[in-house]
Amino acid sequence: MRQKIAVIGGVASGPAAAAQAQRTNPDADVVLFEKGPDISYGACELPYFLSGQIPCADTLVVLTPQAFEQTRGARVRTEHEVLGIHPKRCRLDVKECRTGRITEERFDKFILAIGARARLPDIQGCEAPNVFVVRQLDEARRLKRAFDDVRHAVILGGGYVGIEVAESLRTLGKRVTLLEPHGLPLHSYLDKQHQRIVADELKKHGVTVRRERAVGVETDASGTARAVRTDHGELVGCQAVIAAIGTVPETTLATRAHISIGATGAVAVDAHMRTSLPNVWACGDCIEVQRVIDGKAVYRPLSPSAFRTARVAGTNAARRGRGPRARFPGVVGASAVKVFDLEAASVGLQYNEARACNFDAFTVRLSGTSRVSFYPGAQPLHIALTVERTTGRLLGASLVGQEGAVWRANVLVACIYDRKSVADIKDLDLIYAPPFGPSIDPVIAAARAATKQLGRPTP
Amino acid sequence: MRQKIAVIGGVASGPAAAAQAQRTNPDADVVLFEKGPDISYGACELPYFLSGQIPCADTLVVLTPQAFEQTRGARVRTEHEVLGIHPKRCRLDVKECRTGRITEERFDKFILAIGARARLPDIQGCEAPNVFVVRQLDEARRLKRAFDDVRHAVILGGGYVGIEVAESLRTLGKRVTLLEPHGLPLHSYLDKQHQRIVADELKKHGVTVRRERAVGVETDASGTARAVRTDHGELVGCQAVIAAIGTVPETTLATRAHISIGATGAVAVDAHMRTSLPNVWACGDCIEVQRVIDGKAVYRPLSPSAFRTARVAGTNAARRGRGPRARFPGVVGASAVKVFDLEAASVGLQYNEARACNFDAFTVRLSGTSRVSFYPGAQPLHIALTVERTTGRLLGASLVGQEGAVWRANVLVACIYDRKSVADIKDLDLIYAPPFGPSIDPVIAAARAATKQLGRPTP
Repeated sequence: MRQKIAVIGGVASGPAAAAQAQRTNPDADVVLFEKGPDISYGACELPYFLSGQIPCADTLVVLTPQAFEQTRGARVRTEHEVLGIHPKRCRLDVKECRTGRITEERFDKFILAIGARARLPDIQGCEAPNVFVVRQLDEARRLKRAFDDVRHAVILGGGYVGIEVAESLRTLGKRVTLLEPHGLPLHSYLDKQHQRIVADELKKHGVTVRRERAVGVETDASGTARAVRTDHGELVGCQAVIAAIGTVPETTLATRAHISIGATGAVAVDAHMRTSLPNVWACGDCIEVQRVIDGKAVYRPLSPSAFRTARVAGTNAARRGRGPRARFPGVVGASAVKVFDLEAASVGLQYNEARACNFDAFTVRLSGTSRVSFYPGAQPLHIALTVERTTGRLLGASLVGQEGAVWRANVLVACIYDRKSVADIKDLDLIYAPPFGPSIDPVIAAARAATKQLGRPTP
Repeated sequence: MRQKIAVIGGVASGPAAAAQAQRTNPDADVVLFEKGPDISYGACELPYFLSGQIPCADTLVVLTPQAFEQTRGARVRTEHEVLGIHPKRCRLDVKECRTGRITEERFDKFILAIGARARLPDIQGCEAPNVFVVRQLDEARRLKRAFDDVRHAVILGGGYVGIEVAESLRTLGKRVTLLEPHGLPLHSYLDKQHQRIVADELKKHGVTVRRERAVGVETDASGTARAVRTDHGELVGCQAVIAAIGTVPETTLATRAHISIGATGAVAVDAHMRTSLPNVWACGDCIEVQRVIDGKAVYRPLSPSAFRTARVAGTNAARRGRGPRARFPGVVGASAVKVFDLEAASVGLQYNEARACNFDAFTVRLSGTSRVSFYPGAQPLHIALTVERTTGRLLGASLVGQEGAVWRANVLVACIYDRKSVADIKDLDLIYAPPFGPSIDPVIAAARAATKQLGRPTP
């Protein structure tokens, strides 16, 4: 009998999993369900759609449902919401959104790729029509349509999305206030001193950063948000509020099916992307993944691992015992953001997180230049390495600079996978040519400085 | 008795070795000998001094002899040429260049950092005053002073220096003909298809590349070079000839002292930078180093390993049995060059070299984009991975593109050190953010394509 595979969720990991399942078993009947109208689009690029740098939302759509069916072979049902899965009975409940009609269909295997949603602050007034989040294509489209009426926007949260949207709005000449209760942006990603550099860059480009928490949204008679009330008792008047306080995995469907949820609040899976139920796999932004540094399950809803876990889930759901079982090796946890003229990159564990995870860690900071200091265009580059004292192993890094921060972070990603010590990293044969980097790269210099610290008693 | 250490050669590795020896044993009397007037300068930056991008030669000098003595503690003797070393007798013969006076001095340990010289073609006419090489600071100064009289220059050799000097001369509006007997530039560094891309870039910017070899330099009555004669019987008229056909290790002093020379023609050393004679170490561009890929001794006169081997030599010469012995882990062999608007990078072994070294290798080529394809500024990026068929291990890579080639090469440097297979590389958690790279990076995509090839029978 023809194997039937249901993939639930159509944004990024869903289409990747469906395509991979179809490739793995060309005879299978793979169906991709998506409750919205679009599939296969890039959510990470939405801030650049807002700013107009990516002029048309349609370019974010990698494949239309039609193109997907033609090129990938799997079937697509948009505007179909899956309400429940019953793997034991090989059944799935699906609602056709336009008609509301609910039907039951037979499937052998299920892949959950239901993604995540933007977290909304638990404060009054958030239901106002000019309180926005930037997660889905239609949400971004709605925000962009509202721009004409916006002179001043308040952004809640100084993480990646908050910073990217702040830059987009400043590009369009809007006034922007960013409320970050921790005071400094990117506080869980970067070294403390690097957070200050990012804060200065935001300030330099006209973003007002305030160490305040939103406690309410004030609305006018028509229900429109007019100001944000903060925990300092201040009112910040605005024509739009954008909440960028994080991401919550979608788990309703999993919970309903009695699939285990991990300590992070996301769907728990093993390295083969199996959930706690037989014949159910999961991938993308709804799952937690293993961090290679310490084996801990973490929630890191980022695009590269979404695609990678999707391929693993797709392969394993469709392989029917043939061919090698696919395995996901885990994540280092690396990310980066452009902050106006600055690159900021984060790899692995920063000092505070390392200590919280019981590592005997120390941090070495160094400032160098992106290229040979006297070559035109050379810029300061700041690097902080967090190192395990007992082994010298690199646990994490923070890098900030006008150029050259992200690529150096990527080199360190490769090093962390291999549990490299700073003593090894200092000897890496990195390329030298004047236009690209100094003869002794800041990465090498920082690893050298860290190596010197090793073996010294804790100060 | 106070330990006396002689470091011979003052350009790059010499000062580094002397400084490191002095750090390792602050009581030692470390003396740095240099026959020229300058020490501690960047030779790799000379092409950018020629073009005027680095306006003043003095900025290339990292430390003057005075500043070096003050900050590093070691003594410096410029314009002193070491004629011979006699480690058994603890003696060194040195000539004061200004007076010609030769004296014998006592030293306990010797570090050879005598570097390399530009290879001159073995053809008639090369002694003409307007036949240049670009290796030493004074050679570059001499060439730059001659620029006013140059409308058309002929460059011999399409390696890194040839390309960099061609770009410098074009920047200044000179006509440039580059003679490369292999036809395509960078032929021993890049994948064949990437060589073509570089050739097109040179052509686009007005450099005439000819598949011809110089067989003679024609001079006029005053002895000035007026044309280059090629193996096609052509005469290429010019006002300057620049030879950029490679680098030869300086070994006269080593040979005179009966120190072993390796198969590459450079001084043979072990991983601790010991030569074949007791109490003599060597470092920098005069030595051969071990390639980590296959353990083979190779001659790779590049700045980063010059500095690194210098530190190892300096430590080991001065440590007197105390502290850990320093060790040089070898090189991957990675390099890059800017070719007008292009970056070209080379890592490890390319296909032909891998086959010549008896690897059962294959090459996978892929073209992607430097950033998300629809993000402003995204550029084509070309990558070729050379892989060992039996193990899947990455042996080498070639990358070319307007941006993003060099940093990806550096990530692969780290991978080659760890003998990573392409199956591992495809799972690297590289950073994704639209301004910096696509969601599925070309490195990942190429590693995936290579992984698919593994296990297939040789076509």
